[in-house]
Amino acid sequence: MRDFNLKSYAGLANEALEQYIPSAKDHPGIIHEAMRYSVFAGGKRLRPTLGFITHEMFGGSVRNFQPAAAALECLHTYSLIHDDLPAMDDDEFRRGKPTCHRMYGEAVAILAGDALLTLAFELMTLRLRETFTATQVLQATAELAVACGTYGLIGGQTVDILAEGQEVPNPELTVEYIHTHKTGALITASLRTGAMLAGATRDELAALSRFGHYLGLCFQIRDDILDHTGDQAKVGKTLGKDKKSGKLTYVSVYGLEKAEEQLRKCHVACESALKPLRETDSLLAVAALAVERDS
Amino acid sequence: MRDFNLKSYAGLANEALEQYIPSAKDHPGIIHEAMRYSVFAGGKRLRPTLGFITHEMFGGSVRNFQPAAAALECLHTYSLIHDDLPAMDDDEFRRGKPTCHRMYGEAVAILAGDALLTLAFELMTLRLRETFTATQVLQATAELAVACGTYGLIGGQTVDILAEGQEVPNPELTVEYIHTHKTGALITASLRTGAMLAGATRDELAALSRFGHYLGLCFQIRDDILDHTGDQAKVGKTLGKDKKSGKLTYVSVYGLEKAEEQLRKCHVACESALKPLRETDSLLAVAALAVERDS
Repeated sequence: MRDFNLKSYAGLANEALEQYIPSAKDHPGIIHEAMRYSVFAGGKRLRPTLGFITHEMFGGSVRNFQPAAAALECLHTYSLIHDDLPAMDDDEFRRGKPTCHRMYGEAVAILAGDALLTLAFELMTLRLRETFTATQVLQATAELAVACGTYGLIGGQTVDILAEGQEVPNPELTVEYIHTHKTGALITASLRTGAMLAGATRDELAALSRFGHYLGLCFQIRDDILDHTGDQAKVGKTLGKDKKSGKLTYVSVYGLEKAEEQLRKCHVACESALKPLRETDSLLAVAALAVERDS
Repeated sequence: MRDFNLKSYAGLANEALEQYIPSAKDHPGIIHEAMRYSVFAGGKRLRPTLGFITHEMFGGSVRNFQPAAAALECLHTYSLIHDDLPAMDDDEFRRGKPTCHRMYGEAVAILAGDALLTLAFELMTLRLRETFTATQVLQATAELAVACGTYGLIGGQTVDILAEGQEVPNPELTVEYIHTHKTGALITASLRTGAMLAGATRDELAALSRFGHYLGLCFQIRDDILDHTGDQAKVGKTLGKDKKSGKLTYVSVYGLEKAEEQLRKCHVACESALKPLRETDSLLAVAALAVERDS
């Protein structure tokens, strides 16, 4: 039942992405084709799902949130495309398929990432006005801009890239910074925008921020563990790469056993964070999935 | 006098950029340093200036427009940083200094571009609310998102990159598409956001769009001519590169003489476009500068 619900959210996200990303028939076709290739290469639609869940939790209707859900996935996919570039992580596979730059070349991949980032803000500012007030839309759009900026996603990405293969003075703090920023910031913003557009209070948003912080850590620590112990066919990307390239991960910093312990602790913290809120079953289900997933 | 005014607009833009781009002391320092390096490497501040001019034309106060002016320059600089990357135009100099990726490496340059694009939307959504209504701010932000998207700047960039060194079936149409999208779209959006936030009417905005279309062409045709005949020390970037790399330019498509004729025609079209508007002296001065400039 839980699983069915989560899948239906992913379906709503896909429907919106299908509608809002221009067709490869629209000039210039190659850029739209590259955007669609990466967006529809698979993916769990985690961020849209989190937004749909909190939007419903606070009384909103999922249909109204669809443009924002598409924007969240565009932001996530942009970050993956740029992250995979030769100058960054130099990844060949993503979601089980060749990465964007391997399919379309580096120039188009850079532009496709830029285009998805830009499209996210177009969707937020143009496609939500039928059902939300300008003030609400502006607040939600600002939330995403801050989450994706240098104190959020890009900050995490920068430290991640620079720490690679380096001796870092405080690896525990650094890996936590990377994970909470690179992954946690947009996860938290997804939870908050959904809730915000449904009129959640400041205290409710604060509880979601705490949950998002630990949920982001759960996802990323599980990712680090899967890079060590996962099944490449299931995970859909090259495994063992973190170790080879000297990435800072929970496994490289703490060892496998302690990383698993940290994962359990973060899971407990996720559950505690939700205590002040009601109707949290779906969010608890996502946290459980984050911890247990093998792909 | 004209020139003095234009310079004072650039000063206001610089003041805002100084205030809103995080300091290199803020963690992670390197990304803020790279953003500042490229933004403060020089530049005419054309887009902020256009926004200031139209904001004043329609009764606004330049101080209120400063955050938007900074956003416009962030968008322009992001596009230059990514455009200069080895996978794109592979440029070594910009505004007379080494390009961002030569100073900070490709990974940081990609991220610095991403960060400036993202910061632009943060400034628009967070820093204009003291003086403008949420509806106005949302409209102006959407304008920028559309102008920078695949039907605007990124579209132009994509066609530019793909046309390089290729036989193109309709070079006249293609080079016009590239210039009006790669350069014209953000110039037009700069004119429109300034006016929009000062309450210009739909007809007034339409006149500015026509002006922006031809002003963008003037700037870009002049650029094409300077790449052929300019003084490298003044222009501040490697000249003769367009020809070497087989770029589609007005000079390569029409030859130098006819390109100069097109430039004059576009200048006349700029002046005609402004006829329905009042107090157009400053805009006329910018158009004259676009046509006459040697840097």
